[in-house]
Parts: sequence; C-alpha cells; structure tokens
Amino acid sequence: LTNKKVSYSNRGMTLEEDVSETNEYYLTNGIAVIHKKPTPIQIVKVDYPSRSAAVVREAYFKQPSTTDFNGVYKGKYIDFEAKETKNKTSIPLQNFHPHQIEHMSQVIKQQGICFVIIRFSSLGDVFFIDARHIIKCWKEMDKGGRKSIPYLFIQEVGHVIKLGYQPLLDYLKIIDEHYLND
Amino acid sequence: LTNKKVSYSNRGMTLEEDVSETNEYYLTNGIAVIHKKPTPIQIVKVDYPSRSAAVVREAYFKQPSTTDFNGVYKGKYIDFEAKETKNKTSIPLQNFHPHQIEHMSQVIKQQGICFVIIRFSSLGDVFFIDARHIIKCWKEMDKGGRKSIPYLFIQEVGHVIKLGYQPLLDYLKIIDEHYLND
Ligand SMILES: [Mg+2]
Ligand SMILES: [Mg+2]
Repeated sequence: LTNKKVSYSNRGMTLEEDVSETNEYYLTNGIAVIHKKPTPIQIVKVDYPSRSAAVVREAYFKQPSTTDFNGVYKGKYIDFEAKETKNKTSIPLQNFHPHQIEHMSQVIKQQGICFVIIRFSSLGDVFFIDARHIIKCWKEMDKGGRKSIPYLFIQEVGHVIKLGYQPLLDYLKIIDEHYLND
Repeated sequence: LTNKKVSYSNRGMTLEEDVSETNEYYLTNGIAVIHKKPTPIQIVKVDYPSRSAAVVREAYFKQPSTTDFNGVYKGKYIDFEAKETKNKTSIPLQNFHPHQIEHMSQVIKQQGICFVIIRFSSLGDVFFIDARHIIKCWKEMDKGGRKSIPYLFIQEVGHVIKLGYQPLLDYLKIIDEHYLND
C-alpha cells in the first residue's frame, strides 16, 4: 500500500492483459461488469471421441464484427477497443477494421459510452479517446486524408490513463469525470 | 403486410436463431445494438500453412462465463440468455450454469436490464422473465427446493413475447413497457 511507482518497463504484459486485469478488479469489487468477448471462430470439423470432450479439428479465425470489450457500469452500456502501437508519433488507422468503426457508430447512436484505449508502448503512454474522434479520422481517411492518427491529436482530445497499482488502468475514472457528471 | 398468423410449426428455427434474426432487424433499423457473444474456445494447436490462413487443429469448447446476448438500447445495458425446452410443465434449472447465474446477479447490481427469454417449444410459447426470478429459483434449489421452474410460475411473473413478422420476437417492447416507463 505504499505509493509505489509502477512503470511499463519489464512488465511484458499486453494492453489487453492489463485491461482484463483491470476488469477483473472492477468485477471482484462490484464496481462494473465488463468482459472481453471471445475471439470469433468458424468451426469446420469437430470430433467426438467416445467418453471424452468434443475436439475441434478444423477451424478458422474470423474477423471480429464488434469491439473487444463491453459491459455495464452504473446502468450505462460501456463498449471499447484496446489498441497498442510501437510507433511514437501516430497510430495507423489500419489498426481498426471497417466493421469496428461501423459498430462504434451504432453504439454511439444508441447512446452507449464508446471509446478506444490506445497505448503507445514505446512511450509508455495510455490514452482514453472517445470513439467519435476515431470515426471522424476514419471518415477523413476515406476522403483522402491521412492514414494515421497523430500522437499530438490524441494527446489533445484524449484523456491520459495513468498506470496504477489497483486497478492497473482506471479508465472508469474518466467516465465518471467526463460522461456521468450530469 | 397482411396480418398473417405466424406459427412455430414447420419453421424449424432454434430460439437462438429467432433472437439473432430479431437482433439483426433491430440493428439494421437503428433500434438497438445487441449481439450474440462468440462461443468461447480453448485453442491448443494452430497450424500456419504457407500462403494460407491459420488453421486451428486442436481446440475445446469452454463453459461460457456469461450469458449469450448483450448490447445497448436507448443507452441502457441489455443482457440476456435464451433457453428453450421441450418440457410442457417446467424448465429444468440445470439449463443454467452457475457462472451464468452469478453473471446475472452482477449485472443486476450494476443496474443493467437482465432477463431470460424462454421458449416452451412443444407449446409454442415464448416468455420474457426478469433474471431476478431465475436467480431466486436457483437459490431456492440450493436450499433443497425444486430443480425446475414451473410453467405456471413463468406465466405468472413473465411477459409473453408474441411471435411477429418483423421483428420475429419483439422483446424490446417489453423493456419499453416495464423498464423504461419512468
Ligand atoms: Mg484489440
Ligand atoms: Mg443459450
């Protein structure tokens, strides 16, 4: 319980793992119910060995049609994607699939709270960005605009998520401050 | 657009398929964003044939730790399970896994709208039941109570979902009438 400094160096955990650990903390402490969706898989062949569990023998990974995480916090629908880049000056928009952009638009229309958590792993910075900004950049790219989102833009419109001890990445704090204060 | 009668006979669709078709209707018409979660799978072995997509060669089905469907409607978090039984007088509680019951309790504590859609396929009846009732029956079973939920009880506490044309199973209508009228 000392105010120890935590740094990303040598931790070797992916952003998804850090978010999942944070969600586990939220769940265990009755703060929120947010889960990662299983990876969608197209199953082609299944064996049923006698007296044993069914074994999938041929299957393929499918493109996810939604974002990675969703759930509920104080009655509100929460939906987000976690993305990580080694780049230092921008995050390429090809990190997002068209389906995910479409899904984020649909969630916003339904008044869900939709955002992206982006980690610049070389810099150690984690940001919370409202999905509206991502969708806007995506649409601009479609019209011939740039193919990446600049770090400086994310710094300007996003909110820093500081690396903590418990929870690791307290992104709900940003929702409290910027979405639920009405 | 005639007021044609639709019946379950000869349709041969599972309840999950009917619910997914309903969700597709909601999504396409901008009414709600509700998806079925992919089946969780434990992947053991993956082949990477050159110039082809990765092939899963050994994997096992995992017990789902949550319910089948979730999403957002008018800003609210929606979470439910679809269950179907051929029984005519009750639905066995073994249709629910302990993890699902626990998940439903957690969602309710977070003020999510949580329920079960139950189809008695032999009778052609579909009900919407608030998850609180399912959790209560489950807890009573744990204390030595009955191992199934009687049809008559479901009829009493549940809401009938009439089979329609578009959408097939308009369960959001029940949410409008019983959850959002404040
Ligand atoms: Mg991701
Ligand atoms: Mg089910």
